Amino acid sequence: MSEKGKPVKIGILKMGCIASLPLLEFILDERADRGDIEVRVFGVGAKLFPEPYGAELAEKALKEDCDLYIVISPNATLPGPTKAREAIKEKGKPVIVISDAPTKKIVGDLEAKGFGYIIVLADAMIGARREFLDPDEMSLYNSDIIKVLTISGAFRILYTEIDKVIDQLKKGETLELPKIVINKEKAVEAANFKNPYAKAKAMAAHEIACKVAELTVEGCFKVKERERYIPIVAAAHEMMRIAAKLADEAREIEKSNDTLVRMPHSPEGVVLYKEKLMEKPGPRG
Amino acid sequence: MSEKGKPVKIGILKMGCIASLPLLEFILDERADRGDIEVRVFGVGAKLFPEPYGAELAEKALKEDCDLYIVISPNATLPGPTKAREAIKEKGKPVIVISDAPTKKIVGDLEAKGFGYIIVLADAMIGARREFLDPDEMSLYNSDIIKVLTISGAFRILYTEIDKVIDQLKKGETLELPKIVINKEKAVEAANFKNPYAKAKAMAAHEIACKVAELTVEGCFKVKERERYIPIVAAAHEMMRIAAKLADEAREIEKSNDTLVRMPHSPEGVVLYKEKLMEKPGPRG
Amino acid sequence: MSEKGKPVKIGILKMGCIASLPLLEFILDERADRGDIEVRVFGVGAKLFPEPYGAELAEKALKEDCDLYIVISPNATLPGPTKAREAIKEKGKPVIVISDAPTKKIVGDLEAKGFGYIIVLADAMIGARREFLDPDEMSLYNSDIIKVLTISGAFRILYTEIDKVIDQLKKGETLELPKIVINKEKAVEAANFKNPYAKAKAMAAHEIACKVAELTVEGCFKVKERERYIPIVAAAHEMMRIAAKLADEAREIEKSNDTLVRMPHSPEGVVLYKEKLMEKPGPRG
Amino acid sequence: MSEKGKPVKIGILKMGCIASLPLLEFILDERADRGDIEVRVFGVGAKLFPEPYGAELAEKALKEDCDLYIVISPNATLPGPTKAREAIKEKGKPVIVISDAPTKKIVGDLEAKGFGYIIVLADAMIGARREFLDPDEMSLYNSDIIKVLTISGAFRILYTEIDKVIDQLKKGETLELPKIVINKEKAVEAANFKNPYAKAKAMAAHEIACKVAELTVEGCFKVKERERYIPIVAAAHEMMRIAAKLADEAREIEKSNDTLVRMPHSPEGVVLYKEKLMEKPGPRG
Amino acid sequence: MSEKGKPVKIGILKMGCIASLPLLEFILDERADRGDIEVRVFGVGAKLFPEPYGAELAEKALKEDCDLYIVISPNATLPGPTKAREAIKEKGKPVIVISDAPTKKIVGDLEAKGFGYIIVLADAMIGARREFLDPDEMSLYNSDIIKVLTISGAFRILYTEIDKVIDQLKKGETLELPKIVINKEKAVEAANFKNPYAKAKAMAAHEIACKVAELTVEGCFKVKERERYIPIVAAAHEMMRIAAKLADEAREIEKSNDTLVRMPHSPEGVVLYKEKLMEKPGPRG
Amino acid sequence: MSEKGKPVKIGILKMGCIASLPLLEFILDERADRGDIEVRVFGVGAKLFPEPYGAELAEKALKEDCDLYIVISPNATLPGPTKAREAIKEKGKPVIVISDAPTKKIVGDLEAKGFGYIIVLADAMIGARREFLDPDEMSLYNSDIIKVLTISGAFRILYTEIDKVIDQLKKGETLELPKIVINKEKAVEAANFKNPYAKAKAMAAHEIACKVAELTVEGCFKVKERERYIPIVAAAHEMMRIAAKLADEAREIEKSNDTLVRMPHSPEGVVLYKEKLMEKPGPRG
Repeated sequence: MSEKGKPVKIGILKMGCIASLPLLEFILDERADRGDIEVRVFGVGAKLFPEPYGAELAEKALKEDCDLYIVISPNATLPGPTKAREAIKEKGKPVIVISDAPTKKIVGDLEAKGFGYIIVLADAMIGARREFLDPDEMSLYNSDIIKVLTISGAFRILYTEIDKVIDQLKKGETLELPKIVINKEKAVEAANFKNPYAKAKAMAAHEIACKVAELTVEGCFKVKERERYIPIVAAAHEMMRIAAKLADEAREIEKSNDTLVRMPHSPEGVVLYKEKLMEKPGPRG
Repeated sequence: MSEKGKPVKIGILKMGCIASLPLLEFILDERADRGDIEVRVFGVGAKLFPEPYGAELAEKALKEDCDLYIVISPNATLPGPTKAREAIKEKGKPVIVISDAPTKKIVGDLEAKGFGYIIVLADAMIGARREFLDPDEMSLYNSDIIKVLTISGAFRILYTEIDKVIDQLKKGETLELPKIVINKEKAVEAANFKNPYAKAKAMAAHEIACKVAELTVEGCFKVKERERYIPIVAAAHEMMRIAAKLADEAREIEKSNDTLVRMPHSPEGVVLYKEKLMEKPGPRG
Repeated sequence: MSEKGKPVKIGILKMGCIASLPLLEFILDERADRGDIEVRVFGVGAKLFPEPYGAELAEKALKEDCDLYIVISPNATLPGPTKAREAIKEKGKPVIVISDAPTKKIVGDLEAKGFGYIIVLADAMIGARREFLDPDEMSLYNSDIIKVLTISGAFRILYTEIDKVIDQLKKGETLELPKIVINKEKAVEAANFKNPYAKAKAMAAHEIACKVAELTVEGCFKVKERERYIPIVAAAHEMMRIAAKLADEAREIEKSNDTLVRMPHSPEGVVLYKEKLMEKPGPRG
Repeated sequence: MSEKGKPVKIGILKMGCIASLPLLEFILDERADRGDIEVRVFGVGAKLFPEPYGAELAEKALKEDCDLYIVISPNATLPGPTKAREAIKEKGKPVIVISDAPTKKIVGDLEAKGFGYIIVLADAMIGARREFLDPDEMSLYNSDIIKVLTISGAFRILYTEIDKVIDQLKKGETLELPKIVINKEKAVEAANFKNPYAKAKAMAAHEIACKVAELTVEGCFKVKERERYIPIVAAAHEMMRIAAKLADEAREIEKSNDTLVRMPHSPEGVVLYKEKLMEKPGPRG
Repeated sequence: MSEKGKPVKIGILKMGCIASLPLLEFILDERADRGDIEVRVFGVGAKLFPEPYGAELAEKALKEDCDLYIVISPNATLPGPTKAREAIKEKGKPVIVISDAPTKKIVGDLEAKGFGYIIVLADAMIGARREFLDPDEMSLYNSDIIKVLTISGAFRILYTEIDKVIDQLKKGETLELPKIVINKEKAVEAANFKNPYAKAKAMAAHEIACKVAELTVEGCFKVKERERYIPIVAAAHEMMRIAAKLADEAREIEKSNDTLVRMPHSPEGVVLYKEKLMEKPGPRG
Repeated sequence: MSEKGKPVKIGILKMGCIASLPLLEFILDERADRGDIEVRVFGVGAKLFPEPYGAELAEKALKEDCDLYIVISPNATLPGPTKAREAIKEKGKPVIVISDAPTKKIVGDLEAKGFGYIIVLADAMIGARREFLDPDEMSLYNSDIIKVLTISGAFRILYTEIDKVIDQLKKGETLELPKIVINKEKAVEAANFKNPYAKAKAMAAHEIACKVAELTVEGCFKVKERERYIPIVAAAHEMMRIAAKLADEAREIEKSNDTLVRMPHSPEGVVLYKEKLMEKPGPRG
């Protein structure tokens, strides 16, 4: 509950797709039993570029009078997401921007304007060529990258950082919005591996994911010949597929040692902690 | 474009989470280049039970004056999703319900009331026990089941069926809303495997996914002792993880033969078809 | 040795094939060094339905004057196995019935008549369609299901339960024949996993094996069209193949921790116990 | 049916265990629908050494007046199996000996005495040390070696060779009993691989299986120190486990090309042939 | 034979280690049956930096009066390899430099001075930290990267390009030394995949290998804290290990289709060509 | 440093190729930071048979006045390597012969003449048939066998034994040259596995590698028909490929327990020891 005795209300604006986006509201309340928050989601589907999308979403979202807004999209430098966050900020509401690597270049600007931000460098662009990317290929790519981002710790940063702000809202504290660029070291730190080889594998998976974007950008924007760009974008997705397998190896190691750290939310929204599968989660020691 | 020269506008109402839900808007427009549709998404996050959620979402969605509404949620028999679809239907708008196995028992009712429906039997309930399900476990489960549903053909049914209705809207035809319960045979038929062993593997993966729900229901609702329900829900997720691997085997076979069928959308929203990786997609022969 | 100073003599009647059948006599005496039992096996090969098979086998087996009889077959409700066990029971000899899921429906009857029984729910029917099942496919299916039943603990229940009766016979105690339906929880309990994820994987493998029967029954008896039943029975065997892999993962985890429980027989027929590979087995603590 | 209008009756005498033994009667009639044969099995369980076992089994089996006898055991040079086959031969009945590598040294003798024989070189001795071999390890070893022997073609030789004799019996022809030592080349020839790499993998698996016996013999008979023989027999089983995986790779290749040869029995006992999964089996062209 | 009727004599100077180095002389004469070349190798082991190493090697190598010299080392900009190649060039002998990515920056200089060069971008620096890199880790890394470079086509470029120069020497033609920077596209082109997904996987493996160097450089030179650099170099090697697995997947696809291109040398040094395993190699059509 | 205050100088003569050969100088100085040795390498490429190769290499190597010579080649009974070692021995220099299984038959002779020797039984001959072995297949075979020899411990014996002699040279002690035939037990002992199943897997991999030679010798020298020898040599390489996978399983187990023993050289050439990844190496306790 917020200090006002009501759940903290969070408005999530979704524009286009990155892998951190589809499950965002659910990593905040994974068992739907959390009483301290209410979430409202507004989306415009796959398209995100034009400014009016941002304006429209912001307008709708503002009507909800949320305590916290999150604008999540690929490339937050584009007109659509820019308009969305600024329109909300204008109304004095706190905004966290979640986006991918291209957003890194406006980090200074975001900071200057008082936005929170979480940049997920490994949330690599998809291989969006029509000869290659159909809905199935799209969802499989997301399946793989979700696995990498989860196991390597990026998703854990996402929810624990947002939870910190929720907690501040509940306590009526001054907000300190997150200002984080998630790289390989921060990610695996958050993932809390107990076995150092599991950590190394997860870091390797995370790093491969980061590099996928070089191939997808090359294949989608730089190379024009079909016989060249198809293998390039296909190679990019093979990289993500194998990165997911490597991430899975990391998790399996922790499972084999019964040291897999789980950090579920309590119904009150506290992030709990546990290592052994058969034990109860409790406050982190 | 619809007959009125405008894009068909689709309103998607998301309540709670099933695996068909997080990527739904993106499988309709996988490369964000489709000019014939506009999508608006409204969600209430993980929670879905109470009727007011449905009422609220329906009200917001109706303001958009969409041409087609989709209400997607687990267990559509619950008050929340029921209210949502009925409130929209009341206004004379076409509604497609997308949900999971428990919804099967109201199929007759849905049909009688003129709803379209797509029931994804393999979209099995998650193992929602606090000792087990943290945000990471939740997203990994979704990663696995998304893989199974995609490769086994369920997602292809989702988008091709919705596309049929969009096409009817564009042509101003009388709407024939989908009335489909996706089972193992329908799924793999849609997946269009060229190798019969790939088909068998995909069907097996689909079937395992269906059975996961028996364990999660048992572990979440029937068994009360912690030392018993933790292994049961953990076993359920291990089933889904191995089903995803088996589905992947199916897809790798098609890749090894260069017969993997891809069905991307054209910018005009036509579902194209191709088999060989290096060829262009075209109209299905 | 039995109380009479002679080895306990066990007569095994084999009718048809389930996966618990081919190795049954060998799991009782895995290194052929057990001095306290003698085993005689009588079989009629693959066929088992008609009553005369049962009569013939019973007659032969009774000539041996065994101390204990085991009748093992698929579907013990059929005339053949029914005749076999009843003919032996009639002579006042103790009989344990070992069979698969369809036998569950006569459990009350078996109990009423004083039979012991062990029902192995995961011992799923094979995909017996001529287009699919040749001798190779048959033996590979058995290879896979044997792996699942062994690792998940079902076989351990088989031999420890029979060993209890042998022990009672050796001590001249009143016999308490086993009355057990092996399900996923009982199986993994017997398997004695030290790592909870290994246990979950084994339980998952066991559960998949149970569900195989739904597809084989559908493919063999319910679906008549060749183009439909071939994929269904092929899918069933793919399920068992992947279940075997999952079971193997479970065992590999225990190996990686050097906690794999082994329970060999001593030459005197005592079931010993050990965990570390390099240690000697001893009495269970 | 035999020439006399009755099914050919086959008596199988099982003494001890090799991997070719547990499923032998079932590879002759894999779907239990074969009308042209009757099989009777007699076994003495795991032990096989002493001559009286052989005498007893032979006596029982001869009472059945079978048309053909098969004596299967490890090391057919031992007194038990020797007595069994000779007692039957004495009565003028045709006998096929099926056994493993140690039997190779009496092949001349078997031939001189008119026995048929099939020696399965890859049917390697198990690692029978008490610290290692419990019933589970025993059945898992059999699971693995059954996979190797099946996929590499050895089991196909077993049943096709026995079927030839059955056919001669049905036609009243002079019997030509098999005289075969199954080595890697004969095995994969029978397996009928269409892809040469699948063939190479199967041959490699078969060869590894052959070599397992060197370690088990060393670990069971030559090395006396526990700290040395445990790793050796454990290594032997690891070899078989990985050989099974390699054999599986071979089969998966044929599946990926839909060229997996299946050779099911017809109800009349004819060995049929098919390659494509969806086609009907027919006479081999 | 060279035009002078003698074998072409090739002097290989090895300084330090990259993955292209250890097997270089053997990929030129893989079965030791090539009559048209003689190879002499001179090495200084792992160390390569100081100029005197280069001077010494060049002096020894020049005594042999070879027709062609190859100087292979990591980072050819260092004093050692620089001295080696220049001392040889000074004597008017043709020199091909083979090296890794850091050499790319002197390509213009190499060209200006008339050196041939082959730069293998994916031949990534090893994770040379004492806490991590022992001899075993070193050889395993080389095992993995050799697999990646071979399957992805890089090694095929190495030998076919050197063979072209040998051929020119044999024919007395003007030498055209190779000037190649092997990147992902050139590599897989040379590898000659018949299946496009195999090609994509190989390209992905090659790309991951390229990126390994970013982590090893970071871990070896930029990060100073042990607790940070150990995971980083360990992650780098995990990347290479998984890249090798992915490359293996590519090769297995070609094997499954029996389209694996082999290009063995004839005894006369001609590079032959074949696709089907069972066929003879012949001149490339 | 040697007693004379100079680094110990080691001359390595390489003739032909075995898997222990390509990386030999680098396992002595894996990070190129060892100040106590200097290595010079002399090679004649793939060919090794004729005596003059040995004479030439010995002459060149002797000019360097090394403190220790190593002659490494396949089959050291051939004229080339024989000449090489004897010419050096003649000058009173210590020589260690490193070679493969065929050399075992001259071990008595080597010992009598005062040579040190390390025979690597698992360093199996390659499948050198032109239809099969091109440069790619050659390097992949080496990749696999290097993995087996490293993980199973053979390479660790190589460097620790040579290091002992270097140490004797540094201390001016009487030299005791190694006299070792590396078999499965010695190898895994050196590898120092902490988990007994990892040890068993490594031993199994080592044993499979040993057996590969039987197939390559058969395929290269005994079988003359192309349609027979191609599958045989291909099977041999499949054996090595799967042995490498099995060895990798062994190493992954040690990684999962963070007990992987690393034994890096210190800059002073001392073989250090460590088990936990994050700890520093130190003197072996």
